[in-house]
Amino acid sequence: MKEIKPALFTSLSPALLDLYDVSRSIVVIIDVLRATSTIATVLYNGAKHVIPVDSVAECIRIGKQIEGVTAGERDGQVAEGLVNGNSPFEYPKEFIKGKTLVLTTTNGTKLLHMALEKGAKGIITGSFPNLSAVCDYLVAKKMPVILGCAAWKNRLNIEDTLFAGAVISRIKDHFTINCDSSQMAETLYNDAKEDLYEFMKNKNASHYHRLTKFGLEKDIRYCLQTDGANVLCLYEGGKLVKGTVPA
Amino acid sequence: MKEIKPALFTSLSPALLDLYDVSRSIVVIIDVLRATSTIATVLYNGAKHVIPVDSVAECIRIGKQIEGVTAGERDGQVAEGLVNGNSPFEYPKEFIKGKTLVLTTTNGTKLLHMALEKGAKGIITGSFPNLSAVCDYLVAKKMPVILGCAAWKNRLNIEDTLFAGAVISRIKDHFTINCDSSQMAETLYNDAKEDLYEFMKNKNASHYHRLTKFGLEKDIRYCLQTDGANVLCLYEGGKLVKGTVPA
Repeated sequence: MKEIKPALFTSLSPALLDLYDVSRSIVVIIDVLRATSTIATVLYNGAKHVIPVDSVAECIRIGKQIEGVTAGERDGQVAEGLVNGNSPFEYPKEFIKGKTLVLTTTNGTKLLHMALEKGAKGIITGSFPNLSAVCDYLVAKKMPVILGCAAWKNRLNIEDTLFAGAVISRIKDHFTINCDSSQMAETLYNDAKEDLYEFMKNKNASHYHRLTKFGLEKDIRYCLQTDGANVLCLYEGGKLVKGTVPA
Repeated sequence: MKEIKPALFTSLSPALLDLYDVSRSIVVIIDVLRATSTIATVLYNGAKHVIPVDSVAECIRIGKQIEGVTAGERDGQVAEGLVNGNSPFEYPKEFIKGKTLVLTTTNGTKLLHMALEKGAKGIITGSFPNLSAVCDYLVAKKMPVILGCAAWKNRLNIEDTLFAGAVISRIKDHFTINCDSSQMAETLYNDAKEDLYEFMKNKNASHYHRLTKFGLEKDIRYCLQTDGANVLCLYEGGKLVKGTVPA
């Protein structure tokens, strides 16, 4: 008997998430520059967990309550009242091990809470630094998947689309994909994969432009590298924790 | 003095149109399979004008009122109560010359009315059969542009994205483009341009699939060919008419 493969869809903007059957799916939150790359790094470096929150005010409130490290950016810079920013390089092992990070970001956190409200069956975060963990998990779970790009204020961005394409190119044989967005993401990734950084630069990607202006070229390079912090980032009970890929 | 070039953005789904400054822009309505390809063909073949309407009921009402040819599809097939469908091959010169077509479609008409409600400075329809007319017009007007893909029930589709990419690849030197969607559309088009039909087939594009099931391969091939009905389709006073490209 032929095995029926679960469906995979790609939502290239939070404004499109409603079009997909969130309540039956695992949603992968993708915010490559830089929220989900930083989340992977922080958990990889031994943080206890990461609490994603919507607003700067809540970030400050919860940070005090649990004595966590508050972090977040608005429009690409450290938000007022918070201690840390959104760069993965701010969180080496020596600093973050055993601590809790309370994180608010422009786009990624919002999308995560949307998926939660719509009753997603499961939520993980995805980025190039933990690409393999994401793929292994999705293949092992054998459930419908939505690759959810955080985008930029609902406008599509190249880097989140590229990550969706990277996941698809690795795991497509395990899924049924009737989704033009997924096809386009994979095509884009195949064009770009030889050198993701050069691709972003050549296409004058809006986020490349924005972060380079802030001197964050090093961050971009790190966030486009595969498996530098290869842990599964699983959302459970209000927190992102280091998860285990089922055998 | 350096000339300031007008902005160009691409909205890959009607659900994203709100993100752009419609009220300052010319909006190009793109519904490649098949609404806007058929509109170009009908005007090229000498129809007086095309009246795009939202609903089948309104199509029937106006059709009677003005003794027009009613046409439209829902989910890719002729809608109940209408005489004609949405295939460009239903409208040869002998049949449509001097007549008025009253047209309702699943996605294209809706997007046109959205652009209208949001106060677009100008509206034209675009498709491969009238690619050159679209490009010449946009370059001549020197105004901000939004390439608006009709998509499929708000889900992105490959063919509308490809058309946006084709326009961008031709006219990008005349515009300022800070828009990842535009970059992605152009990249996709560059991958596909050698053989758009084969690209659609290889990527198992959802609309390729849908129309091929209805035996409409011939329609798809026609709708992906450049300049087969090269007229400017201009929306004026509730109607689409054959326009003139300013010198």
